[in-house]
Amino acid sequence: MNIRDALPHIKTSTAPEDLICYGFDASGLEELPSAVLWPETAEQVSEIMRYAYENDIRIVPRGAGTGMSGGAVPLRDSVILSTERMNRIIELDRENLTVLVEPGVINGRLQREVENGGLFYPPDPASMNFCTIGGNVAENAGGPRALKYGVTRDYVMELEAVLPNGDILNLGVRTHKGVVGYDLVRLLVGSEGTLAVATKIRLKLLPLPADVVALLCLFTDIEASGKAVSAVVSSGIIPRALEFMDREAIKAVERIQPLGLSDTVEALLLIEIDGHPEAIRKEVEKVAEICTGFGADVSMAENENARMRLWESRRKVSQALYLIRPKKMSEDIVVPRNRIPEMLVSLRRLSAETGIGLVNFGHAGDGNIHVNLMVDRTNEEEYRKADSLVKRIFEATLVLGGTISGEHGVGLTKAPYIGMEIKQSELNLMRGIKNLFDPKNILNPGKIFP
Amino acid sequence: MNIRDALPHIKTSTAPEDLICYGFDASGLEELPSAVLWPETAEQVSEIMRYAYENDIRIVPRGAGTGMSGGAVPLRDSVILSTERMNRIIELDRENLTVLVEPGVINGRLQREVENGGLFYPPDPASMNFCTIGGNVAENAGGPRALKYGVTRDYVMELEAVLPNGDILNLGVRTHKGVVGYDLVRLLVGSEGTLAVATKIRLKLLPLPADVVALLCLFTDIEASGKAVSAVVSSGIIPRALEFMDREAIKAVERIQPLGLSDTVEALLLIEIDGHPEAIRKEVEKVAEICTGFGADVSMAENENARMRLWESRRKVSQALYLIRPKKMSEDIVVPRNRIPEMLVSLRRLSAETGIGLVNFGHAGDGNIHVNLMVDRTNEEEYRKADSLVKRIFEATLVLGGTISGEHGVGLTKAPYIGMEIKQSELNLMRGIKNLFDPKNILNPGKIFP
Repeated sequence: MNIRDALPHIKTSTAPEDLICYGFDASGLEELPSAVLWPETAEQVSEIMRYAYENDIRIVPRGAGTGMSGGAVPLRDSVILSTERMNRIIELDRENLTVLVEPGVINGRLQREVENGGLFYPPDPASMNFCTIGGNVAENAGGPRALKYGVTRDYVMELEAVLPNGDILNLGVRTHKGVVGYDLVRLLVGSEGTLAVATKIRLKLLPLPADVVALLCLFTDIEASGKAVSAVVSSGIIPRALEFMDREAIKAVERIQPLGLSDTVEALLLIEIDGHPEAIRKEVEKVAEICTGFGADVSMAENENARMRLWESRRKVSQALYLIRPKKMSEDIVVPRNRIPEMLVSLRRLSAETGIGLVNFGHAGDGNIHVNLMVDRTNEEEYRKADSLVKRIFEATLVLGGTISGEHGVGLTKAPYIGMEIKQSELNLMRGIKNLFDPKNILNPGKIFP
Repeated sequence: MNIRDALPHIKTSTAPEDLICYGFDASGLEELPSAVLWPETAEQVSEIMRYAYENDIRIVPRGAGTGMSGGAVPLRDSVILSTERMNRIIELDRENLTVLVEPGVINGRLQREVENGGLFYPPDPASMNFCTIGGNVAENAGGPRALKYGVTRDYVMELEAVLPNGDILNLGVRTHKGVVGYDLVRLLVGSEGTLAVATKIRLKLLPLPADVVALLCLFTDIEASGKAVSAVVSSGIIPRALEFMDREAIKAVERIQPLGLSDTVEALLLIEIDGHPEAIRKEVEKVAEICTGFGADVSMAENENARMRLWESRRKVSQALYLIRPKKMSEDIVVPRNRIPEMLVSLRRLSAETGIGLVNFGHAGDGNIHVNLMVDRTNEEEYRKADSLVKRIFEATLVLGGTISGEHGVGLTKAPYIGMEIKQSELNLMRGIKNLFDPKNILNPGKIFP
């Protein structure tokens, strides 16, 4: 009996159009699943997992498929468990500043709903208008505002999650503090759907900042922009976002969402500062002064519309680059913030040496650079050269004290490289944890571990 | 051969005075260890653990012994591994806002050193002038400023730690973001020294807030003080601290560190707001208005000295209560912030029903109440009655959606109760993790698990 006949009350499809649509994510990798399931409750997720456990069926949990590392892409003969129908905002607790949601809730929808009540959910991945909170939890999603406000991990308080054997777990506390037992909540956050399937998530909220100001800083020297990043943060100001785009990223965006920037701009920083209006004013002056000192042309978004236009452009960088190279490869390395200038120099050198175009943008305040290799991944020779370049980029990153992924996760694309960063003894512990949660290796197999 | 002869280059003592001094912590529990070791490097910790692993010797890691749940108290025939001599601040990285320390560094010393450079390490347990960062990591220490700034977990970026078998692990990243592999850093934080011994710790720092203001709010109605707590936070202001003391706690402190408070005060809130001077002024006005609305008499600390005096009194509550009842018992429950009034009513009822005096103070903004049972723990009958009261307090806490420990951890004192909060399936996973890290159960055995 197949899973569809065994669980007739759960919506299932094996139609080719569904298998195609649920067989890829934003990494560009693809493989057809054997079926797609849309459970509506934790109990249904539990039934699916129990059946899969007993029958050795591989289950791949999936939010909106916006991941960049193939975390939601099935291996052959896998079944997709989509959380799309579990999309309720269950309880908004204004007094305790928490919200309880199902995993299929879209990040952007949650942000809008809590902001209507004067509250704030900071994590804002570029895909925020499509990606789900469940996917954010699985990947420990970040975004521009991580600089001041941290990542998804810093907001998850409680998780209801289903183990591969079907057991329903209740983890964490609904209070601001709690130290009873090991921190299984933080262990699940960022585990890329390999340990359990989250079915309810309680998130911490903050009061909505009273005001936000955005500065656009244009540089004619890319290294100067990197130095400005470090100088701003070490001046004692933590902007809520400090984003970077190099000339090629700017040029790509100008084609689809023009800001009217000149060709002589080598790099831009988009800096946002939030807080009390009185406090912001002084911080904005100081940041502008620092950037001007590094040769930047600084302007302030005149109003909310102008600010939104800047962000629309920023969020469209990846899309703009796909229009130029539909099969590009993208990495998301992180280096300590003060090593960004060196990293940018290394990237320029590696690009020149290999002849592969590199376009860089990202969350400079975090040291998190999205490095785009402008190749055709499906062309075997280009792929081979690009793959060897990726390895050299990772080497340069690690030498500077960095990490090979700040947001995208390991998934399938980085699994071959994980040993460059994580030693064998640490990896053995991680495998041991995987085996403890998923002894039959049926939940999102093939991810993270090489 | 005993461990002393096997590792002659590591400072060791079996002198009775050392065994006594290292056999208890602030929980009041005690047991003599068989030896005390003072390693000075990660390599020496690794040697100790390897020898212990091969020879089935129980090792109990210990910071300053200020823990409240017996986490550092040895079982019989255990060896204490003191981190006192590993007390270097290795590297203060001003540009990237991080600091790398050894585990024996005292929290208060670290705070002063980073503050001298305009930086800020928020976690501030009441024992901050004695407790070590290693102990803080093991217990996931909090403190008053956790309300706005979070707990130790939120500041640990990297850990070097030694496994029970002697392997030296390097966990986490030195960058603001990183999502490569499972989050073993957060798994170790709060694991109460049962999984590995931290030997180096990299902490995140923040810019030092420009200004701080403290308000003292005196209430003649204890429930009104609880309601004020919830009203302040849901007004959109997150004070950096929002501390509570009931009448008995105030009276006890008045004896040793008088603030000159009247006998008619039923409860006080000590509220601290930090940030830009301009922003603070408005927030202080709003908070004062809210508390006045709940019947409070509100005054502002006139200067830094007055503010420090308020905190000295607050930090001496526990000490003052020990002077009254040297063998008191103390718990540290947490409830959702808006359930504090109900919890205070329950505590009054339970005290009246059992005839056991309860004194309450703590971090009201977090819903974290330190409940002190004014008994003589060493008197068998009193202990029996108190133990049954503790269970009823925990039941009332859990009914309100709370947790039985916000800061103190499980250790020995709460191990018998852990099943009230953590279900069997979750506990099995935690035991599985313990077994994975420590298959011979030699590292801090007997803690957490019943």
